[in-house]
Amino acid sequence: MKMGKNPALLLVDIQYGLDDWEYYGGNRNNPDAEKNMGHILQKWRALGHPVFHVQHSSTNNHSPLHPSKPGFAIKADFQPIPGEPLFVKQVNSAFIGTDLEKVLRAQGITTLVVVGLTTNHCISTSVRMAGNLGFTTYLVADATATFDRMGIQGEKFDAETIHQTALASLHDEFATVLTTAQLMNDL
Amino acid sequence: MKMGKNPALLLVDIQYGLDDWEYYGGNRNNPDAEKNMGHILQKWRALGHPVFHVQHSSTNNHSPLHPSKPGFAIKADFQPIPGEPLFVKQVNSAFIGTDLEKVLRAQGITTLVVVGLTTNHCISTSVRMAGNLGFTTYLVADATATFDRMGIQGEKFDAETIHQTALASLHDEFATVLTTAQLMNDL
Repeated sequence: MKMGKNPALLLVDIQYGLDDWEYYGGNRNNPDAEKNMGHILQKWRALGHPVFHVQHSSTNNHSPLHPSKPGFAIKADFQPIPGEPLFVKQVNSAFIGTDLEKVLRAQGITTLVVVGLTTNHCISTSVRMAGNLGFTTYLVADATATFDRMGIQGEKFDAETIHQTALASLHDEFATVLTTAQLMNDL
Repeated sequence: MKMGKNPALLLVDIQYGLDDWEYYGGNRNNPDAEKNMGHILQKWRALGHPVFHVQHSSTNNHSPLHPSKPGFAIKADFQPIPGEPLFVKQVNSAFIGTDLEKVLRAQGITTLVVVGLTTNHCISTSVRMAGNLGFTTYLVADATATFDRMGIQGEKFDAETIHQTALASLHDEFATVLTTAQLMNDL
């Protein structure tokens, strides 16, 4: 195996609320992202590698991810099973307001593989912090996705441009960005 | 004044080493960024608002920002003066491996205005953490800049596209992105 010993899989915000595309900007890219996330999760469980779940609990009661809403739920295929810790966060970073860093360090984990939503918000923030905290971090490009986004000058950036520019800024600075196929090959 | 009480100015990585454009990807955008940063710094000092400096100390001895290199130095117009704390960081985030958060909280500072380099790396990471840590954060769009960047599929994104997509992802999620002119008007 080319990847570090005992790599942990971090599944971020794979919740029904993010199916409300219009709320988040519309036109989500990477329609196969959940399929890829599912393959990776099954592989991780089959190999007995550690799996960590992160769930977003919005403090905005209009958000589809507010804990009072059905969209708060983690999707059926990604529910934690016994032995897989779940961290609930209220901000974008999986490391702020949670014990994630402490638990990873207590388990001697130094390598993280990140999948989930969305590329430019919670994924990018969590990956930046993972890398800056010293974890060897991998981000799976086709197991994350995002939405269209308005620019500050009123221009519209399509989801794929937001996704690819976010990945470009992360790769070789905070993480190694790779595909599901490349990841499977490295295991 | 429309901005929160006692807003702190955070100047990030305004160092000679970042003049090595080719090392960082070339074609830097926002040629007037330093001029704008300078105006903002002078205004902050004139108003007696708190000023904090962040300096990048690369752990890579090939980097123009390695402490052994002349490029490590903060530019002449942005040297800290007595009473302005300086934080030296080794990663992108100004909040990781430094006492910045502790010092801001000890001074009761809740509003941050961020300027410096580069939009998509140290600025974006520091602004994301500032917002997620609960600071009311402003990022001055024309007082930051970046470089061309290769995408993960080999495509080249020009500096202005990387800059604008980074700002689009930050605005209204982690920070309020505004111009120098708007900032001056809010003071």
